[in-house]
Amino acid sequence: MGSTERIKNVAKRVAKWHRAGHRVVVVPSAMSGETNRLLGLAKDISAQPSPRELDMLASTGEQASVALLAIALQAEDIDAVSYTGWQVPVKTDSAYTKARIESIDDERILSDLDAGRVVVITGFQGIDSKGNITTLGRGGSDTSAVAIAAAIEADECLIYTDVDGVYTTDPRVVEDARRLDRITFEEMLEMASLGSKVLQIRSVEFAGKYRVKTRVLSSLTDPMMPLEDEMHSGTLITFEEDSTMEAAVISGIAFARDEAKITVLGVPDKPGIAYQILGPIADANIDVDMIIQNQSVDGKTDFTFTVPRADYQRSLAILNDTVKDHINAQSVTGDPKVSKVSVVGVGMRSHVGIASQMFRTLSEEGINIQMISTSEIKISVLIDEKYMELAVRALHKVFELEQA
Amino acid sequence: MGSTERIKNVAKRVAKWHRAGHRVVVVPSAMSGETNRLLGLAKDISAQPSPRELDMLASTGEQASVALLAIALQAEDIDAVSYTGWQVPVKTDSAYTKARIESIDDERILSDLDAGRVVVITGFQGIDSKGNITTLGRGGSDTSAVAIAAAIEADECLIYTDVDGVYTTDPRVVEDARRLDRITFEEMLEMASLGSKVLQIRSVEFAGKYRVKTRVLSSLTDPMMPLEDEMHSGTLITFEEDSTMEAAVISGIAFARDEAKITVLGVPDKPGIAYQILGPIADANIDVDMIIQNQSVDGKTDFTFTVPRADYQRSLAILNDTVKDHINAQSVTGDPKVSKVSVVGVGMRSHVGIASQMFRTLSEEGINIQMISTSEIKISVLIDEKYMELAVRALHKVFELEQA
Repeated sequence: MGSTERIKNVAKRVAKWHRAGHRVVVVPSAMSGETNRLLGLAKDISAQPSPRELDMLASTGEQASVALLAIALQAEDIDAVSYTGWQVPVKTDSAYTKARIESIDDERILSDLDAGRVVVITGFQGIDSKGNITTLGRGGSDTSAVAIAAAIEADECLIYTDVDGVYTTDPRVVEDARRLDRITFEEMLEMASLGSKVLQIRSVEFAGKYRVKTRVLSSLTDPMMPLEDEMHSGTLITFEEDSTMEAAVISGIAFARDEAKITVLGVPDKPGIAYQILGPIADANIDVDMIIQNQSVDGKTDFTFTVPRADYQRSLAILNDTVKDHINAQSVTGDPKVSKVSVVGVGMRSHVGIASQMFRTLSEEGINIQMISTSEIKISVLIDEKYMELAVRALHKVFELEQA
Repeated sequence: MGSTERIKNVAKRVAKWHRAGHRVVVVPSAMSGETNRLLGLAKDISAQPSPRELDMLASTGEQASVALLAIALQAEDIDAVSYTGWQVPVKTDSAYTKARIESIDDERILSDLDAGRVVVITGFQGIDSKGNITTLGRGGSDTSAVAIAAAIEADECLIYTDVDGVYTTDPRVVEDARRLDRITFEEMLEMASLGSKVLQIRSVEFAGKYRVKTRVLSSLTDPMMPLEDEMHSGTLITFEEDSTMEAAVISGIAFARDEAKITVLGVPDKPGIAYQILGPIADANIDVDMIIQNQSVDGKTDFTFTVPRADYQRSLAILNDTVKDHINAQSVTGDPKVSKVSVVGVGMRSHVGIASQMFRTLSEEGINIQMISTSEIKISVLIDEKYMELAVRALHKVFELEQA
């Protein structure tokens, strides 16, 4: 939510659903810029603020939002009440700044809904078993919304964002990228994990785990647009692969620009080597994505993996300082300028030849494939960063994604 | 607390006390302007925001403050932890925006102090029996501080304010007003209720009820000033009338500028008349201060009382609309430009002639006394607003308050 004008518009939109007879729970985000403002104050004071106190601080942004939205709803003559995460309560573990939801009590929410109230709940935050305030990390309001929808067994969870749905790929890269009316949960999960930023991946995981019908739609439309239209706008994340979808083999092209590749050369090929290399990387909280181990030659092998580009230097340092000599490797090398491009679609399950079509297309464009990783419904390749846009456009075209 | 610079200074000051071996609990206010900013947002959205949601909103200001102060203390290498009102918990009644503290749990605070931590607690707020956030109203952080000091049986409660203590009268009115080293709790209570704005009256009541030794001192001094000096700065509110104080008959001159006087003329003098006049005023949440009923003549009397000037028009309307005809009064009249001046001092108990000296002084200055009200340790007079400063100066001088 942005200014108080934005808050009033959100209230108008919520009021529209409420007046049409829907029982509504709203999970607003903090006001635009507020979380950054608060964290900026902390940074002014300390280079290393404690995570517990950061959560205490950042959670105030959403608390102010729920109060203001409840006030705006009341100004629309709607009975509304706001709750913080600890009031619901939304119980989480104690991992400050990136806590995970453990349970949500639905009693208070349902009794307010029964009384005809709109319930406004803070996203992004909860309370741990010792009564400390926790936050779920950036984008956590989406996760809260889906988790609350699951807890109260909502018919549908509407996620209003600054985009109007999920696209076949990023429209900034491919001009004729097309908005999808529907996408399966599994495809959405792959899209989210592969770098499509529409929804936080944890919210998609929650939607999948609890089978929450979730719709991604635009918060920038006229709040008074006809309800019928709004109900069918955006992209619905479904759990059925219905007949209309079978035609579409590929749903979208996802990409992650800022990847980095690291190779440990000349590693003696014996059991436990992968753990000895990746263990210290995981201990440093660095996410490893693609992993390849080459066929060994003369008892030695090369071990390659990717990490987020921001963690590249740190990863190299860990390997050089603590791992290389320990495992008797020859050397450590890498490339911080690589990107990952993926084709995603449940149709792959029943269609063969997607991989070969993808590889041929990239080959025709003269793009070298450095690594490959596959799952049941996606194929990812790692390529030189400078070819990323070219690859996405070529693949979008060859799989005819601009056509509904 | 103002900017992050101010917060760092508060942390330095607290660190100084902690390092000297004191066990410290801190109750910071919201950052300067923050409460007004938040309430301004609510006003932007609704002319009549609900009190529950206002408390939800306003309480975020203090929550952000405690987190930031804990972060600043940690940056000073001090183990610090912050708590909100509901985490302690500070239990209150459900009177949103003006709640009263009912109990404070000391367990968590004492166990943190035992562990060597500085404990930072939100002022101004608590939690009611249903788990709703409440606030104590403006200035409530002082009250929270004194109440918490009482709960943990603190040796002393230091209230850092923007003045450096309690003065014999307002230095803006009398140039040679003198800071008092000590004042008794009863005198402080009279001074606070008579318009001296140094402390919120409820914090003084708490200090009295639980006998909390409270010191009012300046937050604007160098945070690194020697502890010995700081410990003896400001004004101590005591419970003993010690020998050094006996000499001082009068401690100070208090005044309330914005008063209004209302007279109901020609009221039939029969039992219950005061209640019939003042009941509807109290029902409208208007504070009545001084009250006089004249000697009746021919079974009729005049009834005069004072209200805050801001409530003058509303009081007149209530009397004219619903009271006057009902009690068969002749007419309602008033004066919105009157002020109250009071001399305060425990020494009055053992000294006679204070009242007559006060009245003579005002008479010599040609100031007419419109109403008089007395207690054991204060005498108040109502006078024309335009003579207020003159009266305060003359009384300050005649009681020799500029001399220690």
